[in-house]
Amino acid sequence: MRLRNVKNAKEKLVSSTYFVEKPIEWKGKWYSYFKNRDKILAKQLTDDMKIHIEIGCGKGQFLIEMAKKYPDIYFIGIEKYESVLVRAIEKVENEKLENIAFICFDALALDKVFDHEIDTIYLNFSDPWPKNRHEKRRLTSPLFLNIYENLFQYEKTIIQKTDNILLFAYSLEQFSKAGYILEKISLDSANTDIENVETEYEQKFKKLGYKINYAQVIKK
Amino acid sequence: MRLRNVKNAKEKLVSSTYFVEKPIEWKGKWYSYFKNRDKILAKQLTDDMKIHIEIGCGKGQFLIEMAKKYPDIYFIGIEKYESVLVRAIEKVENEKLENIAFICFDALALDKVFDHEIDTIYLNFSDPWPKNRHEKRRLTSPLFLNIYENLFQYEKTIIQKTDNILLFAYSLEQFSKAGYILEKISLDSANTDIENVETEYEQKFKKLGYKINYAQVIKK
Repeated sequence: MRLRNVKNAKEKLVSSTYFVEKPIEWKGKWYSYFKNRDKILAKQLTDDMKIHIEIGCGKGQFLIEMAKKYPDIYFIGIEKYESVLVRAIEKVENEKLENIAFICFDALALDKVFDHEIDTIYLNFSDPWPKNRHEKRRLTSPLFLNIYENLFQYEKTIIQKTDNILLFAYSLEQFSKAGYILEKISLDSANTDIENVETEYEQKFKKLGYKINYAQVIKK
Repeated sequence: MRLRNVKNAKEKLVSSTYFVEKPIEWKGKWYSYFKNRDKILAKQLTDDMKIHIEIGCGKGQFLIEMAKKYPDIYFIGIEKYESVLVRAIEKVENEKLENIAFICFDALALDKVFDHEIDTIYLNFSDPWPKNRHEKRRLTSPLFLNIYENLFQYEKTIIQKTDNILLFAYSLEQFSKAGYILEKISLDSANTDIENVETEYEQKFKKLGYKINYAQVIKK
């Protein structure tokens, strides 16, 4: 999904108020970050505002829709590639949203960005890394689940969607072994009562007739 | 799956050494039951022989194959309908197996038949009972999982196979909420390294191109 013209992308990112160039500086202070930025809502803010993050947010469609739908939750999109993230930034610039931000960061180092302040992690159509020797790179490997431990605040919620049945089966095993309870599972989320905001991929996959697997898992 | 000629079925069952007419009498003594019957193996028996049961064994193909494959495990097939079970009995009569038995019993009352002496429960292609009001009848409902608690000896293992994605998703949630760890999950067990003995249904389903979902869950 890498795009060309990365140099231009960098400039576009930095010039946007939706992009946080040095996320490390906000570690442990993300709540303040939004409070500072959000002049409109600031007066109404309560201490139980929640922060949700999407790891691998791609072109941002899912998270922007979520931010519109849930104005009382703060959303942070994380994407490794600037050239992909610039598309999300372009998209969000057309909206008037005070509760969303994007960062360009490697998921492996997210403990440098968040310190026990996240409530929910979304993993949408993550790279399945099907080869055994790449297991660690899957965003639901024990390595990553261990990193997430220090990002979460109280109750830990992960919501995963994927069309890849190997990644899904693997993830369910890993969630369970790491102490998560499988709160809600579906092997065909389009045909359930699960409230759903679709990603770009999801719309394509569904047109092709693929079934979307959904897991909401919680650790207390 | 009910067959006709139930009266004849009853006679056939009772006349077979593989059929246990009054299983309640063996509660807590199933190990002795097999020891008594199994004149050949009796001398070699060790205390770590394990008892596996299949709830809803139907015509018995799966359990008979398992008994052939694993001569050091005792297998008990449980089926509600005599008219179905008679097919299993007819099948097993053609084999020389000392490590298998069948009973005709309602799964809801299995705590009258077993007392902390089972190691593994197989649930193969159980009735999905798709309507919400029938949830309790699913063999993985909290009601049934609670009954199973008193059948198991030490570590509790349940192995489920089903082509029904609604039943499968429901079961995964229930296993997890009841404290089971999802040890091995597959959403297409034919294309994995999971060792598999097929049921009658499974062979039909596979020919039709259906994917078989598999779960091995363990509670310590």
